[in-house]
Amino acid sequence: MSEILEMLEAIRRLLHAEDVLLLCHKNPDGDTIGSAAALYHALKKLGKTVAVLCSDPIPARYAYMGFEQFTGQFTPGYVVAIDVASIQLFGDALDPYSSRVNLCIDHHGSNSGYADAMYLDGSAAATAEMIYEMLGEMQVGITPQIADCLYTGLATDTGCFLYSNTTARSHRIAAALMEAGAHVEDLNASLFESKTRERMAIERTALENLEYHFDGRCALMFLTREEIAASGVNMADLEDLTGLPRKIEGVQVGITLRQLPGASYKISVRTVKGVDACSIARRLGGGGHGRAAGCELEGNLENAKAAILAEVEKELRRLDEASAEGEAQ
Amino acid sequence: MSEILEMLEAIRRLLHAEDVLLLCHKNPDGDTIGSAAALYHALKKLGKTVAVLCSDPIPARYAYMGFEQFTGQFTPGYVVAIDVASIQLFGDALDPYSSRVNLCIDHHGSNSGYADAMYLDGSAAATAEMIYEMLGEMQVGITPQIADCLYTGLATDTGCFLYSNTTARSHRIAAALMEAGAHVEDLNASLFESKTRERMAIERTALENLEYHFDGRCALMFLTREEIAASGVNMADLEDLTGLPRKIEGVQVGITLRQLPGASYKISVRTVKGVDACSIARRLGGGGHGRAAGCELEGNLENAKAAILAEVEKELRRLDEASAEGEAQ
Repeated sequence: MSEILEMLEAIRRLLHAEDVLLLCHKNPDGDTIGSAAALYHALKKLGKTVAVLCSDPIPARYAYMGFEQFTGQFTPGYVVAIDVASIQLFGDALDPYSSRVNLCIDHHGSNSGYADAMYLDGSAAATAEMIYEMLGEMQVGITPQIADCLYTGLATDTGCFLYSNTTARSHRIAAALMEAGAHVEDLNASLFESKTRERMAIERTALENLEYHFDGRCALMFLTREEIAASGVNMADLEDLTGLPRKIEGVQVGITLRQLPGASYKISVRTVKGVDACSIARRLGGGGHGRAAGCELEGNLENAKAAILAEVEKELRRLDEASAEGEAQ
Repeated sequence: MSEILEMLEAIRRLLHAEDVLLLCHKNPDGDTIGSAAALYHALKKLGKTVAVLCSDPIPARYAYMGFEQFTGQFTPGYVVAIDVASIQLFGDALDPYSSRVNLCIDHHGSNSGYADAMYLDGSAAATAEMIYEMLGEMQVGITPQIADCLYTGLATDTGCFLYSNTTARSHRIAAALMEAGAHVEDLNASLFESKTRERMAIERTALENLEYHFDGRCALMFLTREEIAASGVNMADLEDLTGLPRKIEGVQVGITLRQLPGASYKISVRTVKGVDACSIARRLGGGGHGRAAGCELEGNLENAKAAILAEVEKELRRLDEASAEGEAQ
C-alpha cells in the first residue's frame, strides 16, 4: 500500500476507535513521546478517551507535553504503537499488548510489522512529521501545545536539523509548527542547550582519557567502571558521548570504550562518510550501521584497546589501498 | 522606506551596476562570506565583472564557495557591503572604500548607515535570507553552488536553527535551498560536527578548571595565558567556549575568565532568560547585551574571580528579592 493510502487508512481506523491506548517505546525519546502526546491531544479534541503508556518513566524535561498516562483508568479498546520499531522495544509495562497492537505509526524502515495495520514512512525524519501530516488530513487544528509536542519529536530526532535524516520536509514542518505557536526558543534551550553536571564531569574524564592513533585518523576515548560510577552520569548522556571522538578534525574513526558493570568493555565505533564502521565491529562479533556500530569485548582495557585498534588499522589500510587503486585507474 | 521597496531599489541598482566589488566584514563568518559568494555567482550569471574583498583571509573550510577574490584585477565601479554593520568592521584592506560604499545589504538592526543606499532587514536571521529572496525577485536560478553558499550563511548565523533568531522564514528558506541542491549533509558535518584537536585540548583544561558557586546557580571556568598558549587554540574556538558554563543544568550565570597576553583577565558573562548579564558586566566597567556581556579586569586570577563573583551574587540576590516580591503580591 502506498504511504498516502496507509495514512488515510490509519486515520479512518483512528476516527472509529474508542478508548485508545497509545504506546511509546522503552527508554523513551522526544519523538516517541512527542508524537504520542500530539496524537493524544488530537484524539482528546475529537472527544475520545485516550491515554499514553510507556515502560519507562517519562523524563521530567518533557512535562510540558501535558498528557495523561495510562494507569488502568479504562479498558483499552484500540491500541496504537507510536515510533516503536519492534516488540523488543516494548518493555515490561507494554508486554500485555505485544500481540494485540491494532495500529503502528512509525518511521523506522526496519519496523518488524508486529501490528494489525501499519502506517510506515521510512523517508520521514521523525514520526512527528507523519503525525503532523495526519492531523492536517484529519483537520484537527494544531494548538500551540500540539506544536510543542511535534517540534520536540522533530527537533530531537534530527539533532536540531543537523543529522543527515533532515529533509526539506522537516524544515517545512518546523516552519509550520513555529507559526502554529511552538515555543521554539524555550524548547531549543531545554532540549539542546542543557547539560547535566554529571555529563560535564564524565566529559572531563573522557577528554583526559582521549588518545590519537594512526596519525590522528583514529581518536579513542575510554571510561572505566569506576569513572562512570564516580561521575553519576545516566545512560543517555553516556551514549551521547560516543559521538565525540569522531567529530575531531582529521579523525576518520572514533572509538569509545565503556567498561560495563560485569567488567567487559562495550565498544562504540563511529566513522566519517566512506569508512565502514560495521565491518570493523562485525569482525569482533558486533554489528550496526555503516557509520555507527558496536561490539562487546571481554578482558582488560589494554586487550580491548589492542583488539579494536587492530581492526581499525585494517580498515584504514583497506581504505588507503582502495584509494590508491582508484588513482591508478 | 519599507523593506520590500528597499529590496526592489537594491535590485534595480545592482542590475545597473558594472565592475562590482563585494565587501565582507573582518573576521569573516559563514554569513558574510556565504551571502557575498551567492551574490557573486548571481551577478556572474548576469554577465557582470565581480569580485569579493575581505580584510582577513577566507577560512579554508569555505573553499567550496568558489568565488574570485579582488586583487586589483579591475577598477571597482560599484561597491556593495554585505553583512557589514559598521565601518569599524571593515579592516585594513577595505579602508579605501569606507566613504564610497554604494549599497549595503545587512540584517543587523544596529547598522550605522554608512552606505549611499541600504537594504536592511533586522528581522532576518541572516543576510543569506535576504540574498535568497533578492535572487528570487531577480529571477536568477538558485544553482546547487549558490544554495551551498546561502545555506552556509543561514545555518551558521542560526547555530543550525538552534538560536533564538531562527524563524519560520529561516526554515522555509532552508527547505528551498535543500530542494535547490544544497549539500546539506556535508555542509553540516564540516560546519558543526568538526572540532580541532586544539579545541579538544582547551576544552579539557576548561573542564578541569570548572567551579560551581552559589548552590550551582553560577558556573565559572578560567583559562590562564599559559594554558591557552599550550593548547594552541585559535580565537574563534576560544570565543565559542564561553557559551559552555551557562549550558549546565541549574546554572543561571555562566562566567569564563581568559587571561590576556598582557596578564589582565577578559571576563565573559552569559545568562539564562530573565537574568541580566549586562548589569553584571557594566558595574565592572564592561557592557554588552541582556544575556551576553563582558568586561576586562586587571590583577591576578583570585582578585578577578572575587570581583566578578561579588557582582554575580548581587544580581542573583536581586533576582530572589524580585521573585519574592512577585509572590507576595
